[in-house]
Amino acid sequence: MELARFLPIARGDEPADLVLRNGRLINVFTGEIIEADVAVAGDTIIGVGPGYEAGEEIDLGGRYVCPGLIDAHVHIESLMITPPRFARAVVPCGTTTVVTDPHEIANVAGADGIRYMLDASEGLPLTVLVNLPSCVPATHMSTAGAELTADDLVALADLPRVVGLAEFMNVPGAVLGLPGALEKLVAFQGSVIDGHAPATSGKWLQAYVGVGPGSDHECTSADEMLEKLRLGMYVLIRETTAAKNMRALAPAVTLQNSRRCAFSTDDRHPADLLDEGHLDHLVRMAVAEGIDPVTVIQMATLNAAEWFRLRDRGAIAPGKRADLVIFSNLKDFCAEMVFAGGALVAQDGVAVGDWPMPVVDDSHVRDTVRVDWERISFRIPAHEGRVRVIGVIPDQVVTEHLIEPAQIEGGMAVAAPEQDLLKMAVIERHRGTGNVGLGFVRGLGLERGALAGSVGHDAHNLIVVGCDDVSMMTAARAVGDLGGGLVAAIGEKVLCSVPLPIAGLMSDQPVEVVREQMDRLLKVAQDLGSSLHDPFMPLSFLALEVIPSLKLTDQGLVDVEKFDFVPLFPD
Amino acid sequence: MELARFLPIARGDEPADLVLRNGRLINVFTGEIIEADVAVAGDTIIGVGPGYEAGEEIDLGGRYVCPGLIDAHVHIESLMITPPRFARAVVPCGTTTVVTDPHEIANVAGADGIRYMLDASEGLPLTVLVNLPSCVPATHMSTAGAELTADDLVALADLPRVVGLAEFMNVPGAVLGLPGALEKLVAFQGSVIDGHAPATSGKWLQAYVGVGPGSDHECTSADEMLEKLRLGMYVLIRETTAAKNMRALAPAVTLQNSRRCAFSTDDRHPADLLDEGHLDHLVRMAVAEGIDPVTVIQMATLNAAEWFRLRDRGAIAPGKRADLVIFSNLKDFCAEMVFAGGALVAQDGVAVGDWPMPVVDDSHVRDTVRVDWERISFRIPAHEGRVRVIGVIPDQVVTEHLIEPAQIEGGMAVAAPEQDLLKMAVIERHRGTGNVGLGFVRGLGLERGALAGSVGHDAHNLIVVGCDDVSMMTAARAVGDLGGGLVAAIGEKVLCSVPLPIAGLMSDQPVEVVREQMDRLLKVAQDLGSSLHDPFMPLSFLALEVIPSLKLTDQGLVDVEKFDFVPLFPD
Repeated sequence: MELARFLPIARGDEPADLVLRNGRLINVFTGEIIEADVAVAGDTIIGVGPGYEAGEEIDLGGRYVCPGLIDAHVHIESLMITPPRFARAVVPCGTTTVVTDPHEIANVAGADGIRYMLDASEGLPLTVLVNLPSCVPATHMSTAGAELTADDLVALADLPRVVGLAEFMNVPGAVLGLPGALEKLVAFQGSVIDGHAPATSGKWLQAYVGVGPGSDHECTSADEMLEKLRLGMYVLIRETTAAKNMRALAPAVTLQNSRRCAFSTDDRHPADLLDEGHLDHLVRMAVAEGIDPVTVIQMATLNAAEWFRLRDRGAIAPGKRADLVIFSNLKDFCAEMVFAGGALVAQDGVAVGDWPMPVVDDSHVRDTVRVDWERISFRIPAHEGRVRVIGVIPDQVVTEHLIEPAQIEGGMAVAAPEQDLLKMAVIERHRGTGNVGLGFVRGLGLERGALAGSVGHDAHNLIVVGCDDVSMMTAARAVGDLGGGLVAAIGEKVLCSVPLPIAGLMSDQPVEVVREQMDRLLKVAQDLGSSLHDPFMPLSFLALEVIPSLKLTDQGLVDVEKFDFVPLFPD
Repeated sequence: MELARFLPIARGDEPADLVLRNGRLINVFTGEIIEADVAVAGDTIIGVGPGYEAGEEIDLGGRYVCPGLIDAHVHIESLMITPPRFARAVVPCGTTTVVTDPHEIANVAGADGIRYMLDASEGLPLTVLVNLPSCVPATHMSTAGAELTADDLVALADLPRVVGLAEFMNVPGAVLGLPGALEKLVAFQGSVIDGHAPATSGKWLQAYVGVGPGSDHECTSADEMLEKLRLGMYVLIRETTAAKNMRALAPAVTLQNSRRCAFSTDDRHPADLLDEGHLDHLVRMAVAEGIDPVTVIQMATLNAAEWFRLRDRGAIAPGKRADLVIFSNLKDFCAEMVFAGGALVAQDGVAVGDWPMPVVDDSHVRDTVRVDWERISFRIPAHEGRVRVIGVIPDQVVTEHLIEPAQIEGGMAVAAPEQDLLKMAVIERHRGTGNVGLGFVRGLGLERGALAGSVGHDAHNLIVVGCDDVSMMTAARAVGDLGGGLVAAIGEKVLCSVPLPIAGLMSDQPVEVVREQMDRLLKVAQDLGSSLHDPFMPLSFLALEVIPSLKLTDQGLVDVEKFDFVPLFPD
C-alpha cells in the first residue's frame, strides 16, 4: 500500500476496510499473547489495538490471531499439482507464503520451468516465492532436460518473487571449491543461499557454512541440529511423506535457540496433504512434542521471514501484509479463518471467495516426454554369471548394492518375480537420445505386470520396472502417450494411470482428483502383487545417482560410493 | 576473504594464521557457553572447535570469547574527537563496530561532512558504519550550514559503509505525511531506517512504524519500550551522558523480547568515556540490572547486527569477520584482548600494534566559523516591562518558558548575574548572515564573565552566554579565532579554551587531551561562578528548537509548543 494512502487510515482520520475485534493476538516479536483488535485496509495491516473503525467488522470472540504460516522449503512438484491447485490446497491450512524450489521442473525444462512456476503462481492468495535450483543437473552421470549454470541463475535472480539460491546439495563441490559449484556460490554471496548438508559436520560443515549456505533442512538428529544452529544456520525442521524429522528434532528446540528454527514440508504427497494437512500439521506436531505454542508460531512465521529477509510479513504489525490466521486452540492448531492480503480466502478448511486461476502459456512445459520408441529395447543379452541388483529398503531412499546369480533365459538376463527380482529400465525422455539404462531391482514385490513413471529424481527420466518386457513396454509407452504420468500395465493392457501432463511431474487437476487417481493406481499395484503401500515412491528415487548405494540412470548403473559407473555384470 | 582462499584453511589442508585455544565461547545464536578453539586467517573466522593448526597460538586458559561489540547508534561528534581518535578510545573497551549518525557535522558541512566522516574512518580497526542524517536542518527556524534533501541522501546511499537512514526525528512529518519527510521515507523504503520517536504511542506510533522507521533509542520507560517492541521495533537501549535509560528499561527485557533489543551510546562526553567506558559500560550495567549476561552479549552483538543486516559480523562463526573480545568475568565485563579483523588491536584497555591514522583532506570541514563580526551586537534596546527567560533544568535538555521583569540599564535590557539572569546570543556562523538571536537564560549560575561555544545542536551556531556584553564578545570572537571551540572569558581576556577546529565540533587531539582541556575549562567556568558541573552541556541545547519549551536560535526566540517564533518582550 502506498504510504500516502496508509497514513490517514493509520492515524484514524479515515476508516479501515476491516477490523477484527476481540482477538487474542500472538505477538511473535515478544512472545506474548495480547488482547487486541487488528485493523486492515487493502492488503495491509493498519494497526493493532483499540479505536479503529472500518467498513466491515468481525468479532473474533476471543479467538487467536497469528500471522499467516510460512513454509520455508517446499517442492510444489512433489505434490503433483500446479501452483494454483497447490495454493487452494494449502491456504485453508493457514499457509499463506511458501518458498518453493522448482528443482524438479527445472531438471525437465530449465529456466522455462522456473518461469512457468512463477507465472502460474502470479496473483494467488498464496505468496509463492521461488528459490533458484542450485544443482541442475545433479551430476553428469544422468541426462536431465536442462542445465543451469551460474550465469543462467544470475539471469533469473532479479525476477519478482525470486529469493535466492535453493538447497545447495553439492556439498563436496562447495567444500572442495570445485569450479561449477564455487562459481554459483560466489555469484550469490550476500544473497539468501539455502543449504542441504545431510550428516555433514565438523570442519566440512564449517567450510560449507563459510562459503554461504545459511540454512539446512536435512537434520535428522538433535546433535546434528545443535551443531548447525551453533554455526548460525537456520534449521528448517522437516516433516514430509518420506523424511520425518520432527520427533527427533523438537526436543532440542529451546527458547534460546528457537530463533533460528523454522519449518519445511519439502516433499509431501497428495494423500498426506489431504489427510494430515500442510504446515499446520507441523505446528500441531511441534506443540505435541512439547515446544511452547507461541514459540512454535514464531518458528512458523517470523523466523522463516527473517531467514528469507521478508520484511513485509511474518508478524502482525502496521505496514505488514495482512496475512492472518484465526484459530481457537493453542494445543491443536486449526485454521478457522485465513486472510491473505486482507481478504478472507478460507474458512473452516475450505477455500472461499474469488480465487484467481492464472492463465498461463504452459506450452513449454507440456509434451516433455520425447522418446524415439523405435530405438528402445529392454533386452539384456547375457550368459551365466552374476548380476548387480538394486536392493530397495522400505521407507528409505538409500538402496543396497547386491550381487547375485543372474537369471538367464534364451541368452537373455530376465526378471524372476518369484524371487522378487524385477527388471528395470531408465529411458532418457528429454531429448530422444535413445539412452536406456537397464538393470535389476529387488524389494518392490511386484508379481506380474509393470509400473512406469516420468517422475524420477532428479533428471526425471522415464523409469519402468516389471516382470516381463511386454508389460514394461506397454507401461512405458503409456507414460509417453500421456505426455508424462504414472502407469500400471500388464501384457499389452494399461490397467491404470495418473496423467501428469505438466513436465511429466504435475497433473492439471485438483489435489482431490490426483489423490483419488493415485489411490486407484496404488490399489492396482497391490493387485499386481506389490508388497509396498506406494511402490512409485521408491521407484522415483531409483535413478537418483547422488544417494547411496547403487542407482540406475539412463546412462547406466552408478555405484554412488565410487561416484562412477559400474557394469551390470561384475565378473 | 576470498572463498578460494578460505576453503583450504577451513578444511584443515592449510594452517590458519591464529588459533585461540581453550576459550569459553559465547554462542549468541543458541545462548550457550561452549568450550572451543577459534581459528582465524586474515580478517576472517575460519572455524570453531578442535583440530585447527596455525602459525600463532594463544592459550585463553578458559577465558571467555565473544563477538566484538556493536554500538547501534552514536554521534561521534558528541565526543568532540575525530573518528580515528574515537576508534582508539572505544576499541580497547571491546567495541569493534559502530553505526554513527553524522548528524552534527552534516548540519555544518552537509554531504562534505558525511564524506569526511567516511574518509576519516577508512581502514580503522573500528568499523565505522554511517547512517545518513534524515533531518538536516532540524527546522527552518534556525540557520544550519546545510540542507539535505531526499535526493541528496539518495546520492549518498550507495557509498561504502553507508547503512541507511538515521534517526527519523520528524515524527509529525512522517505521521502527517508532509512532503519533505514522506519523500525521504519513500526513497528509503526497504532500507534500514532508524527511528526517533520519544514518548510517541498509540495510533501515531503505529502510523510512524508503518511508514518505515524500525528502531527507537528514545525509550525512557518500560511501558514505552514494550509498546515499541510489540510493533516489531528494535529498541536500542540508550545510556549517555545526558540521557540515562538503562535502569528504567533493563527490568522489562525478557528472554523472549530481548531478540530486538540492542544498545546505543548516542551522545557521550569524553570524561564519561574515559571514566566509565563505552559499550562495555552498558553491558556491565545491563548485567548489574539483572539481565542474563549471555542475553546482554546477544543484545550487544547479534541483535544489532541483525537490525542493520550486517551478515558478516555479530557472531563467532566461519566466514564472519574476526572481531573478538576476550574477557574473564561475565558479571563484570572487561575487555582484556580485542581482535579486530583478526589482528590484536587492544590489550588490557590499551591500544596495541600498528594503528593507521587516515590521511584525509579535511579542508571542507575546517574554518567553518564564518562570522562578520562588524555586524554583531548584543545590545537589546528596551524599556520597562517583562521579558521571556529560558529556564535551564539541571540534567535535562527541555527548558522552562519563564516570563519575568526585564532588567533595564541605560535603555538596554541587561543580564543580572546576582539573580542568575544571563544574556544569551546565538550567532549564525555558517554563512556570515549577521543573524543574531538575543535573549535571557536562568540556571547556569554564572556570576561574571562569559561562556561561548560552536557546539549548538542541531544547527551548531555560535552560542554565547554572559554577564556583560564585553565578556560575551571576547568569548564569541575567541571561538571564531579558533575556527570553532569552547571558550570562557572575562572582560577582554580569554581565560580558557578547547579548540574544536573540525567543523567547530571536534578536536584534532586524542580524547585524553580533550578531556584534560575540558576539565580545565569546567574548572574555570566554576571559578566564574557556574553552579553546574558542566554548563556547556545545557548551553549546547539552548538553541535546539525542537525540544520544549523555550529556545533561542539565530533567528529569534522559539516557543517550541507553538512551533513558532515569539517576541522577547511578550507585552
